[in-house]
Amino acid sequence: MADKDRFVNQIADIDTDYTQWYTDVCLKSELCDYGPVKGTMVFRPYGYAIWERIQAEADKRFKALGVKNSYFPMLIPQSFLMREAEHVEGFAPEVATVTHVGDTELSEKLVLRPTSETVIGNMYSKWIGSYRDLPLKLNQWANVVRWEKTTRPFLRTSEFLWQEGHTVFATPEEANADALKMLEVYKEIANDVLALPVLTGRKSEKEKFAGAEATYGMEAMMKDGKSLQAGTTHYFGDRFAKAFDIKFLDKDGVHKYAYQASWGISTRLIGAVIMAHGDARGLCLPPPVAPIQAVVVPIGVGKNAAVGEKAREIAEKLKAAGLRVELDERDLSPGFKFNHWELRGVPVRVELGGRDLEAGVVTVCRRVDGEKLQIRIDECAERIVAMMGEITKSMYDKADAFTASHIVKVEKLDDMEKALDGGNFCDAHWCGERECEDKIKQLYAATARVFNADQKGVEKHKCVCCGKKAKHRIYFARAY
Amino acid sequence: MADKDRFVNQIADIDTDYTQWYTDVCLKSELCDYGPVKGTMVFRPYGYAIWERIQAEADKRFKALGVKNSYFPMLIPQSFLMREAEHVEGFAPEVATVTHVGDTELSEKLVLRPTSETVIGNMYSKWIGSYRDLPLKLNQWANVVRWEKTTRPFLRTSEFLWQEGHTVFATPEEANADALKMLEVYKEIANDVLALPVLTGRKSEKEKFAGAEATYGMEAMMKDGKSLQAGTTHYFGDRFAKAFDIKFLDKDGVHKYAYQASWGISTRLIGAVIMAHGDARGLCLPPPVAPIQAVVVPIGVGKNAAVGEKAREIAEKLKAAGLRVELDERDLSPGFKFNHWELRGVPVRVELGGRDLEAGVVTVCRRVDGEKLQIRIDECAERIVAMMGEITKSMYDKADAFTASHIVKVEKLDDMEKALDGGNFCDAHWCGERECEDKIKQLYAATARVFNADQKGVEKHKCVCCGKKAKHRIYFARAY
Repeated sequence: MADKDRFVNQIADIDTDYTQWYTDVCLKSELCDYGPVKGTMVFRPYGYAIWERIQAEADKRFKALGVKNSYFPMLIPQSFLMREAEHVEGFAPEVATVTHVGDTELSEKLVLRPTSETVIGNMYSKWIGSYRDLPLKLNQWANVVRWEKTTRPFLRTSEFLWQEGHTVFATPEEANADALKMLEVYKEIANDVLALPVLTGRKSEKEKFAGAEATYGMEAMMKDGKSLQAGTTHYFGDRFAKAFDIKFLDKDGVHKYAYQASWGISTRLIGAVIMAHGDARGLCLPPPVAPIQAVVVPIGVGKNAAVGEKAREIAEKLKAAGLRVELDERDLSPGFKFNHWELRGVPVRVELGGRDLEAGVVTVCRRVDGEKLQIRIDECAERIVAMMGEITKSMYDKADAFTASHIVKVEKLDDMEKALDGGNFCDAHWCGERECEDKIKQLYAATARVFNADQKGVEKHKCVCCGKKAKHRIYFARAY
Repeated sequence: MADKDRFVNQIADIDTDYTQWYTDVCLKSELCDYGPVKGTMVFRPYGYAIWERIQAEADKRFKALGVKNSYFPMLIPQSFLMREAEHVEGFAPEVATVTHVGDTELSEKLVLRPTSETVIGNMYSKWIGSYRDLPLKLNQWANVVRWEKTTRPFLRTSEFLWQEGHTVFATPEEANADALKMLEVYKEIANDVLALPVLTGRKSEKEKFAGAEATYGMEAMMKDGKSLQAGTTHYFGDRFAKAFDIKFLDKDGVHKYAYQASWGISTRLIGAVIMAHGDARGLCLPPPVAPIQAVVVPIGVGKNAAVGEKAREIAEKLKAAGLRVELDERDLSPGFKFNHWELRGVPVRVELGGRDLEAGVVTVCRRVDGEKLQIRIDECAERIVAMMGEITKSMYDKADAFTASHIVKVEKLDDMEKALDGGNFCDAHWCGERECEDKIKQLYAATARVFNADQKGVEKHKCVCCGKKAKHRIYFARAY
């Protein structure tokens, strides 16, 4: 077996076994590993570094909007969950419960937060007294625990990392506007930081968060045509305010319940990046979050020591220009190294061989499309910095074209299966009844994702399922 | 009651009720609050922002040493803890145990990490195969749970936030050197970032970490003369390697156990900052971690609108110079505002009144010593930026002088009580026997903190307790 093929052969074929391809890419690029407890995962340095970049990009956007970070306890009295009927119904089956400390049984059972509306609501009722205390906009970066039966790295694990923003306002309009505003922020992060096109919109009643009045989501298409819910924002009305007695004395001297929103993105986004951009050779990472943006590979150092020296110099130059750079001086064949870094999705490979050196150039290869170009060494730092933005755009455009070409308008139920099996989202009309939603799920394992941004003339159409007058235009898809 | 005294009166007197003073400062400066579950705490934005600054300062130092961040599961099989005999003995009584998910009992009990040596050791045994995999230096920022009977905000809570570094080496010398090196890094953070003088050194056998061969600690003196363990590093030898089968194939073709170290600092450091620098008026925050470094207070805006305008301009100028700035335009008296920001420990207050404006100056007041000076408006940004370093130094010097003047050489057991009651550390000699250590604890509630950096001529001295020949020079103190 040629060195060149070794790494590629280590991962399953993306076209014939996407599931195994995903697992192989996760493990073999050393993004993560399985934890000792079933359903848990370990974020290895390469995977965690992506999360750190996502955190930094999100955090600065939140702070610019006046959101402040804080931290609330992970352990929540079990009774708190009970206070909002839908909330407990949604989360109770998957909450992990702490009953003992050492050998002593606790007097009250505690749950590990599956989300923090309840514990934060409890504190907000203490802190909020007057309209002057509003709006209150807090966020926390934290781990949460949701015990899922079927787990997959990044996509669904017993414990995951996320941020949860919890905001409080004097009026329902402001709270709902916050949920919509944060959806926009999430979309910007998906587009600009992760090169990920997303469909955004409101979710159906069935698909909304347990305890919310309305849930808004962003959905990203994976390369198998399935949807991945990549972030959600929720408008709660005064539901949690009533459950936790969050009241304020308004300007008019009347005590009123406050209105709330919450919003979250998680380490799931790493799964989205893997599945939306990856290819037969492995990962393909968007430059803004790539832990290594450029790898410098000297070729034939054994025959020509000057190559090694110049490669080191180039690596330093690229670092000085602000890039995250790796210099691969290992005593391994170029083919092996190329595959190694392609599997890991490094956006740009910078090759320097004897002939390159003589000609005063480097050969630069873009991971996204394999395009190679020669760049003069004295210009390479500047050019490669510029390439980062170009590559992000190429990646976005590629994923966007893929998404656009895999959305099929479906008017009859019979056409849905073919569309879904062909790896498409169904752009359909729906009467709004739960019955039809359930039927589509039962027949084709597809769910309502988000309402279409364009609802114009929807009343002229018929429900894809029952044929009655449509109320919504909505995307149906199979989902992770 | 005059406005000026309102805030000061809200906190207990530091000289007569230090314990209540601490609680008052924590809660009334809005650093934190109590969580709904006994022993838990909430990090409010002002407190969490200090932690974010500590994290950033520590993280950059770790990364500069080649340490990479990662994340390991919080849930650990109970059986893992059992594998290292001393480790389980030390932690078992305080671990919280998860027994159920929803209504279903788990087949294996899981504990919430009190620290992660075991779960990380388990992964390291999988990842490490060859000498080429060493050294391995990972860190994680995480929450841990240790169920303590007596809790106090920041100092001792059921859940706290920390970082834990876990490093693996081929030789015992390298692992021990890493524990010592990280102690130096912690000292630098304490000194330069928190303006906190610390005593560093090895801990006694009794005080070492459960499962370590050696523990090194840094101890900071609080204003009541008690010691606060502000960070520890541990050398494990091959203990966890043997418990978790962490072996590598060495260059000589022999499979060998690896050697490990671990090191951690936590949100306890915030408690240290409060208690080492705080005074009768409240918090006093070191500029490197102060969420607000300068507060601008316009005075008499009602009479002179130009003052308000100029104050806004100054605040913008200070922000542009890189400072974290708050402009207090609230319709409250200057005295009220002064106390408000003094309680919160803002390093510098910038006052601008009508006369100041006429003279083209601002009045700047340093929180650390109340020193006031007038600075020309056109020079104020530059001067205040420079003041940040000066203030950090002043704070360090002040705390250092306090510490130095509260270390008493004690040669007889009878003198120990007086020294401790006077709020001092005891610089003493010790035979090294556990019996004497236990006796001192029983008699005076003081414990061995760290060995003195100077062990010269120790053999010429006698144990402060039993009078036998001394083996160590060591600090005894009451501790948090």
